[in-house]
Amino acid sequence: MKTRRLDASRRRLIRHGIDVGGALLATAAFARPLKAAATEPSSAAPANETLKTIHGLRTIHGDFSERVVPDETIQLVVGASVRAANASAMQSYSIVVVKDGATIHKLTGYRGSCLLLYCLDYTRVFDAAAHLGYRFPGANLESFVTGSTNTILAAQTAVIAAKSLGVDSLLTNGVHRGDMQRVWDTLGLPEQYCFPLIALVLGYAAKEPAYMKGRLSGPGVVHFGKYHRLSKTDLDEIVRQHDDKSRHLGLVEDWDQKGHKHYLDWLYKDWLRAPSAQGPQPAPAESQISKFMRKSGFVEEQKS
Amino acid sequence: MKTRRLDASRRRLIRHGIDVGGALLATAAFARPLKAAATEPSSAAPANETLKTIHGLRTIHGDFSERVVPDETIQLVVGASVRAANASAMQSYSIVVVKDGATIHKLTGYRGSCLLLYCLDYTRVFDAAAHLGYRFPGANLESFVTGSTNTILAAQTAVIAAKSLGVDSLLTNGVHRGDMQRVWDTLGLPEQYCFPLIALVLGYAAKEPAYMKGRLSGPGVVHFGKYHRLSKTDLDEIVRQHDDKSRHLGLVEDWDQKGHKHYLDWLYKDWLRAPSAQGPQPAPAESQISKFMRKSGFVEEQKS
Repeated sequence: MKTRRLDASRRRLIRHGIDVGGALLATAAFARPLKAAATEPSSAAPANETLKTIHGLRTIHGDFSERVVPDETIQLVVGASVRAANASAMQSYSIVVVKDGATIHKLTGYRGSCLLLYCLDYTRVFDAAAHLGYRFPGANLESFVTGSTNTILAAQTAVIAAKSLGVDSLLTNGVHRGDMQRVWDTLGLPEQYCFPLIALVLGYAAKEPAYMKGRLSGPGVVHFGKYHRLSKTDLDEIVRQHDDKSRHLGLVEDWDQKGHKHYLDWLYKDWLRAPSAQGPQPAPAESQISKFMRKSGFVEEQKS
Repeated sequence: MKTRRLDASRRRLIRHGIDVGGALLATAAFARPLKAAATEPSSAAPANETLKTIHGLRTIHGDFSERVVPDETIQLVVGASVRAANASAMQSYSIVVVKDGATIHKLTGYRGSCLLLYCLDYTRVFDAAAHLGYRFPGANLESFVTGSTNTILAAQTAVIAAKSLGVDSLLTNGVHRGDMQRVWDTLGLPEQYCFPLIALVLGYAAKEPAYMKGRLSGPGVVHFGKYHRLSKTDLDEIVRQHDDKSRHLGLVEDWDQKGHKHYLDWLYKDWLRAPSAQGPQPAPAESQISKFMRKSGFVEEQKS
């Protein structure tokens, strides 16, 4: 029964692509000192309500109940979201609020009460420029990086605001799976200077997940003073931590039942389909995301 | 005196590039209903401590006091930061913690007690793959988008966690100004698969800013059901809102003293150096960011 659930969960993950998420909650594993984090969790209590909210975050993979998120709550979430910092006070993003369940499913592959689709978006800046007789200086990878930063800062603020109001969430890049053109067509997104980055599905968990997903917060993630590349010993430790089931670091728990020695073998072999280090380097293919970034005007020509 | 301060502030903005930030606080303007937001701020009180924290966020542009952020606080901030959702449980980022003031200034152009440099980073994933005999499938614009999303979700979580602990912050893309190579050289970042995205400077404000920056949260930012492109009437309203000094929407307050009819004239003409709509379209130049994205291995070749 447990195996079947995991299989269903994995099939869903594969069908809908790689989700941004993975934190499942039962008992919150709160703030732990960085240096101790690599080896043992701490039982230290969170210092305040906001930290408690953050440490209570976990992704609900579409297991939302039928309960509807009230409009007033959505307004509080979006009102908090726009408070995030943004470059040059330009708010180079759009938030498309979708409440139709079929549309949410078509766009993300998931069901939930409400979708906030966060798009990197210079359309308002572009249109206001033309309105006043200026030409928008144009988009490129620099404005993509700056704009996507603004967009995700706002999205995570919404995640935390929602959680503080008792609303659970799923961040998914499901909009980048399947034919991405459906996102533009379904929502009428502008062809240029607008790019859907991340979908935030809101709702209420039908049931609490069985455990809280863990995180690495030691070597390889946090560096002090300078970047410290992992030694072979460090890498052994990273492998070991992923194999420690009490840490819940991985996407799946039953990797060993699939015949793998380590969780990371499952990740590389089954999940990422990584070739052997001895094999030939596969030719790089252009991703669909790259094609749509070009189509949206965000990839400038290379100057040699 | 006021003019001189604004000039200094603008010079600093120009010298150090476009900052991600701009929210200045005096009295917190809390959550306002979306539909009313375009026309009037609401005086509704925040619903809880987390929303209060979010609505209290504002950027400190290097005006930090000498007070040092304690290590324990930095640990709480980073410990909260890694709780953000992340794709495939891969935590494809690194956080470099820098406490040396001269290094912080060299990297960001600002001074503060502590820098958390958030890098999109697949190095750990790459190294662990090689360690186990696999070849990292390679980076491209898709992994750049996925990885940068993970990175910024973590960064904003740190911003909110810091604020909840009384620590002020500045998010700046100053690392992308000047010669970006200095960031790799100064911190020893890996040449491939690692890209510094955003610098988070932490400290304590030397004094409270005089006002809270405003935000757009109506048409052009929030869309219901479908994307609604702005009409000419909407654009007039956007121009008017930016001219309304009580809303504090812009980067500067003295645009009219500089001979501009509208704030957005200042933004396009003086800040963005936008050409006239009647002029020729300038040839697109490759940005430094794009060059370093190529160098880091994140831009795949275009397939025709």
